[in-house]
Parts: sequence; C-alpha cells; structure tokens
Amino acid sequence: MNITGDFFTYTGFRAAMNMTMPMPPPALQNFTVTKATMMEFPALNGQSVSYAMLKFPSESVNPPHTHPRAAELLLVLNGTLCVGFIDTAGKLYTQDLEEGDMFVFPKGLVHYQYNPGQSPAVALSSFGSAAAGTVSVPVTVFGTGIDDAVLAKSFKTDVPTVQKLKLALTPPPKK
Amino acid sequence: MNITGDFFTYTGFRAAMNMTMPMPPPALQNFTVTKATMMEFPALNGQSVSYAMLKFPSESVNPPHTHPRAAELLLVLNGTLCVGFIDTAGKLYTQDLEEGDMFVFPKGLVHYQYNPGQSPAVALSSFGSAAAGTVSVPVTVFGTGIDDAVLAKSFKTDVPTVQKLKLALTPPPKK
Amino acid sequence: MNITGDFFTYTGFRAAMNMTMPMPPPALQNFTVTKATMMEFPALNGQSVSYAMLKFPSESVNPPHTHPRAAELLLVLNGTLCVGFIDTAGKLYTQDLEEGDMFVFPKGLVHYQYNPGQSPAVALSSFGSAAAGTVSVPVTVFGTGIDDAVLAKSFKTDVPTVQKLKLALTPPPKK
Amino acid sequence: MNITGDFFTYTGFRAAMNMTMPMPPPALQNFTVTKATMMEFPALNGQSVSYAMLKFPSESVNPPHTHPRAAELLLVLNGTLCVGFIDTAGKLYTQDLEEGDMFVFPKGLVHYQYNPGQSPAVALSSFGSAAAGTVSVPVTVFGTGIDDAVLAKSFKTDVPTVQKLKLALTPPPKK
Amino acid sequence: MNITGDFFTYTGFRAAMNMTMPMPPPALQNFTVTKATMMEFPALNGQSVSYAMLKFPSESVNPPHTHPRAAELLLVLNGTLCVGFIDTAGKLYTQDLEEGDMFVFPKGLVHYQYNPGQSPAVALSSFGSAAAGTVSVPVTVFGTGIDDAVLAKSFKTDVPTVQKLKLALTPPPKK
Amino acid sequence: MNITGDFFTYTGFRAAMNMTMPMPPPALQNFTVTKATMMEFPALNGQSVSYAMLKFPSESVNPPHTHPRAAELLLVLNGTLCVGFIDTAGKLYTQDLEEGDMFVFPKGLVHYQYNPGQSPAVALSSFGSAAAGTVSVPVTVFGTGIDDAVLAKSFKTDVPTVQKLKLALTPPPKK
Repeated sequence: MNITGDFFTYTGFRAAMNMTMPMPPPALQNFTVTKATMMEFPALNGQSVSYAMLKFPSESVNPPHTHPRAAELLLVLNGTLCVGFIDTAGKLYTQDLEEGDMFVFPKGLVHYQYNPGQSPAVALSSFGSAAAGTVSVPVTVFGTGIDDAVLAKSFKTDVPTVQKLKLALTPPPKK
Repeated sequence: MNITGDFFTYTGFRAAMNMTMPMPPPALQNFTVTKATMMEFPALNGQSVSYAMLKFPSESVNPPHTHPRAAELLLVLNGTLCVGFIDTAGKLYTQDLEEGDMFVFPKGLVHYQYNPGQSPAVALSSFGSAAAGTVSVPVTVFGTGIDDAVLAKSFKTDVPTVQKLKLALTPPPKK
Repeated sequence: MNITGDFFTYTGFRAAMNMTMPMPPPALQNFTVTKATMMEFPALNGQSVSYAMLKFPSESVNPPHTHPRAAELLLVLNGTLCVGFIDTAGKLYTQDLEEGDMFVFPKGLVHYQYNPGQSPAVALSSFGSAAAGTVSVPVTVFGTGIDDAVLAKSFKTDVPTVQKLKLALTPPPKK
Repeated sequence: MNITGDFFTYTGFRAAMNMTMPMPPPALQNFTVTKATMMEFPALNGQSVSYAMLKFPSESVNPPHTHPRAAELLLVLNGTLCVGFIDTAGKLYTQDLEEGDMFVFPKGLVHYQYNPGQSPAVALSSFGSAAAGTVSVPVTVFGTGIDDAVLAKSFKTDVPTVQKLKLALTPPPKK
Repeated sequence: MNITGDFFTYTGFRAAMNMTMPMPPPALQNFTVTKATMMEFPALNGQSVSYAMLKFPSESVNPPHTHPRAAELLLVLNGTLCVGFIDTAGKLYTQDLEEGDMFVFPKGLVHYQYNPGQSPAVALSSFGSAAAGTVSVPVTVFGTGIDDAVLAKSFKTDVPTVQKLKLALTPPPKK
Repeated sequence: MNITGDFFTYTGFRAAMNMTMPMPPPALQNFTVTKATMMEFPALNGQSVSYAMLKFPSESVNPPHTHPRAAELLLVLNGTLCVGFIDTAGKLYTQDLEEGDMFVFPKGLVHYQYNPGQSPAVALSSFGSAAAGTVSVPVTVFGTGIDDAVLAKSFKTDVPTVQKLKLALTPPPKK
C-alpha cells in the first residue's frame, strides 16, 4: 500500500467549520455533532486522540451522556454555553462558558451542555481516545425497550410517566 | 509498620453472606449493596479487583447505572434475576438468570438488575478494578439539581414531569 | 453475527454452585477448581475480570502456585480455610478464614489454600484479568522434566530425593 | 477543599481565540503557541488530553519538533498550512491544509508546520496526554552546548558551519 | 536540587564487569547476581528497564524463580549456560547457550539457568521493568515456614522429606 | 506449530560480541549498531524488552537521535564514551563513561554517544520495549526532502547552508 500524507488528513470538518448556521425557529432546530474518530478518520487508530464539533442552535441542549473511554476537553469557539457534570458522589458542577473558554469533563461521568442564548453556539471537543464512545442517557434508558416495571421502580414513578417518556424518546423504526 | 495477614483479610461480608433475609412486605424493602472496594479494604489498592454483594428483596431493582472504571461479572448465588445492558449503538441485551448463572456487563455501559420473583435474590459481583465507581442514572440525572429546562429538553418532556421525577429522586438534605 | 444476551451469559457454574459434595474417605478426594475465564466464557475478552470456584474436600490443599497476570480476591462461601502467601522479601503471611471472609493474594506472588477441617470448604475467587493464568509450583518444578542435577542443586538436596518427588508429581503420559 | 466548576474551567485561551492578529512586517513576526496542558490547567491531571493554539504570521514556521508523550491532532481554524512528518524509516509525509482540515502527527515522530501565505494562519491542536512535552530540534541540537566535534561528525559538516548554527540558535542567557 | 549527568549514571557494575573470577573448588562457590534496578539506581524510576549481571561458577545454578513484573532477556557474555522455562500448560523449553547467544524468559513464568561446564559463565540480563522483582521457588516454598502438612500434601510426599528440604533451604536467622 | 526452545533463542549477536574490531584509519570507520528487537527476534513480541550492541571505532559518533517508544539503558563493555541528552527544558546532561559504567537516556529525549579515544569502544543497550524505534536527527531533518525554506527558517540560517547539509546527509538513492 502506498501511504501518502492523504492518509493522515481529514477534510470532513470543512463544512462544519462554517460557523454561521441557517436560522429557522429554534423549536425546529436540534443540537448536532460532527465527529472525527477512528471510524471516520482511520489514521487515528492507535493515536489516542479525536475531535468532535458541537453546534448548538438557540436554546438547544446536548442531553446528559457519558463517554466510556475518555475525558472530554471542550473549547467554546462561538457563543455561550452552560455546562455541567455530576461526580460519583452525586455532586453537580456547573459553569457558564464564553467564547474561548475551556472545560474538562472527567472520564466516565455524566455531563451535558446547553445553549441558553438566542444566538447559535459552536464548540470543539477533543478526547484522549480515538474511540471515546457516547452513551446518551435519555435514549439509552427510555428509548431501548427496558421493561416498564423496571423503569418505574428505578425512577420511583408510575408506569404512565414511564410510557410517556418512552413515547418521546424511542427512535422510530428504520424503514 | 508491622503488616500481617490481617491486612490482607476483610471480614465485612460475614453478615451479608447470611443469605436469608427478613421478610417485611416487599413495598417496604429496597435493593441493598455491600461493597469490598479499596475504600473498605485498603489491601486492594493496586490489585485491580473488588467485590460487591447484591441483595434483592422480592420485586426490587438495582436501577440503571454505570461503573466508569471496570466491567462487572455477576454470579447469582440465590434466586433469579432479570438483567440487561445497552450498548453504545442503543441495543438492549437482556437475560433471565438462575442460581449459579453468570453475566458480564461490559465496561462503562448502562445496566440494571431486577428480581421479578416473590423470593429474595442474592448475587456476588466482581470488578476488574479496586475502585470501579458507580454512577446511578436516576439520582444522577434527576436528583442533583440539573436545571429543569435542560432536563425537559433532554428528555423531550414538559417541566412538570421533570419536577415530579426530581421530587421522587432528590435525596433529602443530610441533617 | 446476531449477538444476544446469551453471549454475555455463562451457566457453567450451575453444578459447581451445588455446595454439598459427596463424601468418600478424604484420602480419595482432591481439591478441584471450576473456572470462568475467557477460555470458557469468551465474552470476558477485554473485560479484565474472571471467576474460579474452589472446592476443598476435608484436609485437601490447593498447592503453592502463582497467577502471572492478576491478583486473586478469595471469598469463603462455606467452611474454613488456612491461606498464605510469600512476598518477594521471603516473608510468609497466613490467615485462618471463616465463611464470609475475604483474602487478597497480591499479583504474581506464590500462595496456597488448605482446608484443615473435617467438612468440605468452598470459596469463590475473582481475578483482575480475563486470563490470569496459573503456575502450580510442585508440578512445574518436579513434573516437567527439569534435569535432576539442576533440581538437586537448586533445592540443596540429593538426586534420590529429587527423583522421589518427580515420581510423585510427574503427570502420567496421555494415552 | 471546596472544589467548584471553576476548577474544571480554563479561560487562558480567550485572548488567543481572537483570530485577528496585528500585522507588522512578516520578518518581525514569529510563530507563537498558547498551551492548555496540566501545567496551566491542573484539572487536566489524569485526563489524558490537552490543547495548544498555534498562530502563524505570514511565512512563519513551527520548526521540526517531537512530542515525547502523545500524538498531535491539528485542525486549521484560519488560513492555510503546509505540514509534514518523517516516519522511523526516513520517509517524509507532507500535506497542504485549508481551513477546516485536520492532520494527525503520529506519536514521537519529528514534524513541522509552515504558513506559506501572506495571511496569518491559526490552528488548534489536541494531544492524547495532559503533558505531551515538546522537543524542538534546532534549539535542542544547536542551542544547548553539545560539543562542536560531536555535532560536526553527526551532521557530516565542518566545525565553522556548526558554530554558525549554534550562534543563531543558542538562546541568550537570562538576565 | 541540582541534577547533573551523575544522577543518570551508575558505576556499580564496574567490579562485576571484571569477567575473570577467582577459582576455589566449585563446591565452595555459588551463583551470584549484581543488580541495577531502581533500588540501586534511582534514575531508572519510570523508565521501565533494568539490568542484572549473573555470574555462574563451574556447575552452579540459578534456581527456578519468577519475575512477577517483567520478561527477562539474557545475553551470554562468557562461557556456556543451559537454560529453561515452563509455560502455563506445563511444557518445559530448554536451550544450550554459547557466548553471544540470547534467550528470552517470558513474563511471569518459572525459569532457571545452569552452568554445566568447568569454566565460569557470565550473563547480562535486561528486564522491561525498573523493578522486575524475583521470587525464588526453593526458598519461597521450603524456607519461609509454610506448614509441613500443607507442603507434604502439595508435593505428594511425606513430612520427613519436607523437613529435610526445609532444613537445607531455610535461611539462618539474622544476628 | 511445534515451538521449541529455539524460538526463544537469538544467535545474531555472536559475531557482534567479538569485541576486537579491525583497524583501518578512523576516517574510514563509522559507528555501527546490531539490533535484537522483535523484527530480528520475534519471540520478543509482547515482552517489552530488547537489546542493541553499539560499536564505536576511534573518534566515531552515534548522532543525536530519539527512541519514540522506550528509555535506553546503556552499559559500556569496552573503552570509554562521552554521552549526553537534552531534557524538554533545553538542559544538556553529559557524562564521561568508563568500562562497566551505565547511563540511562530517559524516554523520548534527544541523546548521542561519542568515542573520543584512539581505541574502539563497545556498549550494550537495553530498551523497555520490543520495538523502541529510532529517529536519527541529522538524516530525518536534512536527508528526507523537507523544503529548503522551512529548514532555513527553522534553523535561522540561509538556504545555501541548508543545501550543504542536505547534500551531506541525504542518502544516495537505492539502485
């Protein structure tokens, strides 16, 4: 195989780097992420580093999630973000970040980001793994078919509340 | 320091090993865990292994949770358990376990156990870390003070539903 | 491949978990071990944890041995055990364990367990590796064909003593 | 110690994020780097990730260097860069990068970046270590006092050439 | 602290490097080892490498032993050696080595070296750890006070044979 | 595959161990290295250790280089050597070594060795990796085709000086 500099290059962020975003009503917009992990960029294999570009329309949220294999170091490129994580003792740490601010989410802990403003926000996150993985809490818990009784007992609530959350969070079947 | 065999011995499981449990009505009983990690048993420091004894009264649940630093290998000592975990692609894996059965929950993934029967169940779990850590999803997400709006957007629900879950899951303040 | 919860389940301990053992004269009984490592249970691959169920008839011994790749955390499920290990400075650490007691054998050190009583004993050991490996000292040293002169010099004894030990410890050839 | 979200926040990039740079004649300008490693941002300790913001005035170069403890994943935020690294077999890999392009410099290899254009260029690099370290080849080899004869033989040149390079590359003594 | 090149230098092998040895009758001579681990040479801390110089008078043996934390790569500098190790399946691997020959003893396995000749032999061993550790089988098993009954059962022999081996291998008390 | 002791044996150092070297005029002689890494000796795979035999004719040099994956522990077998390395703060550490002296070059740092005497010198180096890798600075920087302008700016010199160094250090094309 004739490997050249192309193998070590990834151009998949060119579009994502365009930091202006079209502006439909916020209710129609969702948080989006563009990843450069070893899945998209095979040269990262064995190099223990990867990137994700996070784009937050006004009032959008990146829901509580964990990365099983790495810490996340987030840098705000545009706008403002409210971020937080919860340690294993159940303590919540929050921060309001401005453009240029950096925040580290320690390895394996549940965390989220929220854009409370009326303008979009953009952040670049790096990970100390080429395949950090993501476990999104809402979909994982309410969108994968766990038994209603297990969830009702776990969340100390009633089955109708569980069913309401499942209805909202279960992905539609792929056609 | 005169270290003897006592340093390498832990007797904190003697009571937990008594596998018969008193039997109040199930509604009054909760899942309990007895741990032998490097916090309780300092000789485990650097040895990359620990135990937890899990006791499930009838119809009790160990709610969805993750261990940030280790896989869990569970062995059913008494009774039956329904267990499950969700991989990073959002697929749920479940199993019904009998006495003597073993199940492995891979590193960093959300998982739960449930005793559907009318008899208590007991399991012994080992971890490939002396400090696996535990992040319980319900309390972490709804019991630590994350902003209502962030949670409502994340779980695609309304603020009253979030507040109802927070009320049930927020631990009472320590007196 | 359609992986289900079965892949993460191991039922090979069901029989071993039956803690009553038939009772021929002790002289006819030997220590036995049932393992759940990545050899028997492939889902453990990459998860850094495994189990072994140890059964000790009356007055039986698990001879001095090492695990090259992990520490061992032993929990007595039934009966009593006398255990010990030797550190790299040549110091012996011993302990008498009752039901429910736990003992940690640090990584790579020579250790043994002995049931001194008239009743069987059962222990469950976990390892911080999916393939801890076992090097049994008596068979490794006297049962694999190391030259008599090397062994006599090593153990500061005479060749007839070496040959007597070899005779007892060399496994019969497989037919 | 009362740790809050501030501990996990770093604001030292706010100024560096201002991507317009004053424009004296290029000859007066040098490449500059702003780092967020565990030295500047202690919360990164143990998290295996860090950032560096690289600013290249017109026609400036980040000289050949290595990072002993991590790979580098560079993302061009503004402008264009010519980059290259040499593998252990002595093969040079080069690439011309535009805004939004990414390039990975594998762990431990000598690499450089050059801005050939008339406009400034800005890049953000992440590392799979909280303390990747930097060994700059020109200063390390010609600016630290290695014996002239050793250098002349090593570079297969004459002592006057070595002395000329040393004069240019030896940092002035600190006053 | 003013660290200089001295910190990275170890001169403790100068005498051991003198490869001629005095020649009393072999019966009076024993195998000796000179070590350069992080105990003797603190600059090795964190560098994952160490040396041992092994000197074998005629017909002397380095008894069966393991290194819990590293493989050993042995190079014969003078003379000849018969070496062997036993894998975890109980298979013995042996080799006769001449001057200049190299042999690798894999991590954690029991191995030995023997000089069968009438001339001394010298070998240099390197380890992929700054503190490989050594567990010598004869002294560990028969020289540390393990109960006679445990040893007799383990080695499938009688108590007098165990006591004879203990007498030869138990180090005299330190005065 | 029938693996025997041969697999764990390497005889490629027999010739190199002959420590007398022919003696043409020094100007015609170069430093040479004989390696036993996992490339030459596959049994080292996974064992984290390797050797190199270094032979220095009178007044020869092993040019500044790094090993990306391991520290180097050098032992002088014959003659004398002047050695040095530069830390990441740009400080040079040097030492004059005699026969039997040992020096450790920490992981990833630029270092060199020089034989200033009229007699040959021989050293044996071990590495805490089976594939430490070598990046020779002169050839990597001036012999692989990096652009003249990049090198001139990096070394703060003129293009003719760069071209002179390239001419001396670029390997001739393989025929």
